[in-house]
Amino acid sequence: MDTTEKLKLINRNLKEVIGGDIMEKIINKRDLNVYWGTATTGKPHIAYFLPILKIKDFVDAGCNVTILLADIHAFLDNLKAPIEKIECRSQYYKKIITLMLKSIKVDVSKISFIFGSEYQKSNKYFTDILRILNQTKKNDARRAGSEVVKQVKNSKLSSLVYPAMQALDEEYLNVDVQFGGIDQRKIFMYAREFLPLLKYKKRIHLMNPMIPGLNSDKMSSSDIDSKIDLLDTKLEIYKKIHNCSLENEGLIFLFKSIIYPYCSIFNLQIMISGKVYTFDKLYEDIKMKIIDETELKNIASDMIERLICPIRDEMLRDLKLIENAYGNK
Amino acid sequence: MDTTEKLKLINRNLKEVIGGDIMEKIINKRDLNVYWGTATTGKPHIAYFLPILKIKDFVDAGCNVTILLADIHAFLDNLKAPIEKIECRSQYYKKIITLMLKSIKVDVSKISFIFGSEYQKSNKYFTDILRILNQTKKNDARRAGSEVVKQVKNSKLSSLVYPAMQALDEEYLNVDVQFGGIDQRKIFMYAREFLPLLKYKKRIHLMNPMIPGLNSDKMSSSDIDSKIDLLDTKLEIYKKIHNCSLENEGLIFLFKSIIYPYCSIFNLQIMISGKVYTFDKLYEDIKMKIIDETELKNIASDMIERLICPIRDEMLRDLKLIENAYGNK
Repeated sequence: MDTTEKLKLINRNLKEVIGGDIMEKIINKRDLNVYWGTATTGKPHIAYFLPILKIKDFVDAGCNVTILLADIHAFLDNLKAPIEKIECRSQYYKKIITLMLKSIKVDVSKISFIFGSEYQKSNKYFTDILRILNQTKKNDARRAGSEVVKQVKNSKLSSLVYPAMQALDEEYLNVDVQFGGIDQRKIFMYAREFLPLLKYKKRIHLMNPMIPGLNSDKMSSSDIDSKIDLLDTKLEIYKKIHNCSLENEGLIFLFKSIIYPYCSIFNLQIMISGKVYTFDKLYEDIKMKIIDETELKNIASDMIERLICPIRDEMLRDLKLIENAYGNK
Repeated sequence: MDTTEKLKLINRNLKEVIGGDIMEKIINKRDLNVYWGTATTGKPHIAYFLPILKIKDFVDAGCNVTILLADIHAFLDNLKAPIEKIECRSQYYKKIITLMLKSIKVDVSKISFIFGSEYQKSNKYFTDILRILNQTKKNDARRAGSEVVKQVKNSKLSSLVYPAMQALDEEYLNVDVQFGGIDQRKIFMYAREFLPLLKYKKRIHLMNPMIPGLNSDKMSSSDIDSKIDLLDTKLEIYKKIHNCSLENEGLIFLFKSIIYPYCSIFNLQIMISGKVYTFDKLYEDIKMKIIDETELKNIASDMIERLICPIRDEMLRDLKLIENAYGNK
């Protein structure tokens, strides 16, 4: 694959790229180092396939990808994850993300997992936290975290440390690129502004679009009806998809961002009423209301079940892990 | 010395004691462990004899005293000390405080010095910072630091970490008591409230009065005319003391808190116009304006010069240290 093809793959489907002009120069010389971080809080759900599919693009384009399981961040974020659960949740994340990657044929040898606690407690990292906090005003930190860190009245100081650590992670993971959802944009901008004050270099930032919930604006771990959990049963998947309205974009986005890319990897086709559908055609027919809604939802359910099934089956083989991480709910 | 005498010595001249009711029980069993911390920022001046004299009481009462040279705090406090100067300043503090202790005959074998950076960068300490910040609201931290941390518009986040670390120091220095000026009161109250949330025990807090400046409310490192520096020449001492007005309490406080205690250690007497003066008599005659002001100021200058002279002479033997810590001013 030549540089142009690599760049095309790296950039495709992104919502925004900042500082991307130097990527070509790096790729001409060596593999690009990319990091994606995820705070190990709520259960990863179907929307996590969005970054996972993008990571497949990175790997296919020859990038080295580091996945940061941000356990300390999980703790900092206004107690989203209770401290005694965090280690189990991090293990849960590592396992399920690995299964997700494998399920879409990602070469996992190009991926390294790291837990935040493996390096964020070092002497040097701590000194750098103090250095960056010494440059950061309260409002800088609040603004940076506003889309990501849970916004609560009287939030705790720890939540203000969150963006500072995420910025430092770029340096400590020694990457060229931080990748994340567009909701990370303000933290990325903070990192771009503050790392250079510590004489660390500004990174490239690649941002994915967000996926809306099935019946809400954002698919969120904390809103059960808006999301399909990766451990949902076949019945639950069918119910949730059939209950969602075509009026909002949730299902359409699921087709666009997950089902079609998945089909493309496995050379599958979307057939409705005996016709093969491209996404554009599907979108058009949905908007014109000339598509069989039941068939549409059936095939969506089929595909999601097909995608999730091997992950769910493997996860269920370790019920203890699930219970330790998320209790009996 | 029996427990009652020890307690009397420990408590004398303090402005406030919180949680002191358990001291007796501890002293009946073992020596009390006390810590006094000082951020290594501006040059220590004559008012530092206030805590040093109190530390003499603690040592004479059999306490073990830890002096924390809070270098990381110096850095956190809105850049009061530039990072490249902090190590030199910490060495300067250690040297001059040792000389001060010796100058009033403190048994320094009962005293241990520790730099904050020796333990505050540990893995465990960092985890505890995150734990305490996870309980601390912004306003808790701001209130706690309001008398101690430099209050600037748009202060940096690091200044909000300051009180949290000072609270943790009580646990990490393994003491029964934190001692400080009454200006530390809000940080002490913060520590009393927040350490128990981390399952650490609430400490005893002993507070000294503050000494007013010669011509202002507080003797401060940053107000040159308000203070007598420990490196001031004999001429500077005489000038500053003769320039101060008896209308404000600066000079009276200097007599009460430093000169008389010093005289008592060395069996010296304050003689003015051929009469031996107790402090009470001195105070009365000053208020009634029936004291020879020139003689009063001369004897104050004599005593301060006598106190400072050996410290200054020893410090001047290492001009390099002074220059590295505070430049050429």
